[in-house]
Amino acid sequence: MFNSIKTLIESRNSVNYFDAKRPVTANDVHELVRLATLAPSAYHLQNWKFVAVQSDEAKQRLKALSFDQQKVVDASVTFIICGTLAAHRQLEHTLQSSIESGILNRSVVDSWVSMASNGHETNLQLQRDEAIRSASLAAMTLMLAAQGMGLVTCAMSGFDAQGVMHEFELAPHALPVMLITVGYPADGNWPQKPRKPIADVLTFA
Amino acid sequence: MFNSIKTLIESRNSVNYFDAKRPVTANDVHELVRLATLAPSAYHLQNWKFVAVQSDEAKQRLKALSFDQQKVVDASVTFIICGTLAAHRQLEHTLQSSIESGILNRSVVDSWVSMASNGHETNLQLQRDEAIRSASLAAMTLMLAAQGMGLVTCAMSGFDAQGVMHEFELAPHALPVMLITVGYPADGNWPQKPRKPIADVLTFA
Repeated sequence: MFNSIKTLIESRNSVNYFDAKRPVTANDVHELVRLATLAPSAYHLQNWKFVAVQSDEAKQRLKALSFDQQKVVDASVTFIICGTLAAHRQLEHTLQSSIESGILNRSVVDSWVSMASNGHETNLQLQRDEAIRSASLAAMTLMLAAQGMGLVTCAMSGFDAQGVMHEFELAPHALPVMLITVGYPADGNWPQKPRKPIADVLTFA
Repeated sequence: MFNSIKTLIESRNSVNYFDAKRPVTANDVHELVRLATLAPSAYHLQNWKFVAVQSDEAKQRLKALSFDQQKVVDASVTFIICGTLAAHRQLEHTLQSSIESGILNRSVVDSWVSMASNGHETNLQLQRDEAIRSASLAAMTLMLAAQGMGLVTCAMSGFDAQGVMHEFELAPHALPVMLITVGYPADGNWPQKPRKPIADVLTFA
């Protein structure tokens, strides 16, 4: 088990050139999002939304909002991964299925709803932080799942988030956090770039 | 390959109870961070830092800053995963090894440094967003790597970030984004909680 996740992580790299002729199936898109939503989130908020951009027309609109990067058009699908602001307001509803499945009891849910509401309602920075955290955890899960399916990906944070909200008529409170292009690779991609030495990033306490 | 990442993602859950007697080795800690840093980051900023909290004394200090949650003490190691603010100022240095390995050329690096500097220097919100994005991508990679090593984890965003910065004398610009407890499970943990239906979170364009 470790060897394969190790191999997946070690072989993943950010891909610029996609095979524009090889599609990702609707089943794969669905499966990628299903797996992405198994990422954790604070209070089990599940404060994320996914838009799978696959039509030629929508790809052109997204390309124009992401510095005209060709990979948005060439990749079979680009996910707009959003974090949800003010997600605490839906938390009681969101946790209903965890009560019904017998995992959480009513008093745990009540206490989480109370804590989340007290912490988030007037703290817009925390809402934004939490939206970015959850969307990014889901995005990384999606990228590794894709890698495991023989697909390649590129995470992009350079795009016009306001423009995407407007152009794609996103749900209220949906903050576009990252674009993830997914498809099959073409030739000419960079190999994985070297990382900082571990000693530069890890300390002990 | 897909079956195993699928199984890892499907079997990961947030663990509250850790076996306080079973340690994670220093080798494993190092390997977890090495793999975490293979996550992607904008401009290859690698804007992250990791503090591995393992000593009894440091665990007690961290527990006091995270709502007194016992798992911080019981887990063999808790990582303070930080995103780095103002990381664009080190970008030219950071990318040096990618030039030396022949992957990036000087003009690509110059253009990334210029774009990152123009975008980030006066935009503190973007610096924070980017720090949270990168740290969260690394955190998810670390959690799945741990799962593959037979370890279990819990991601926590409920802690006193200011207190942690001060108490652990973090590097300048290091923003604590998430705590990840890592160890072996004890009895009594929740199973994985159900997720929202895919139709509630996925749309197509």
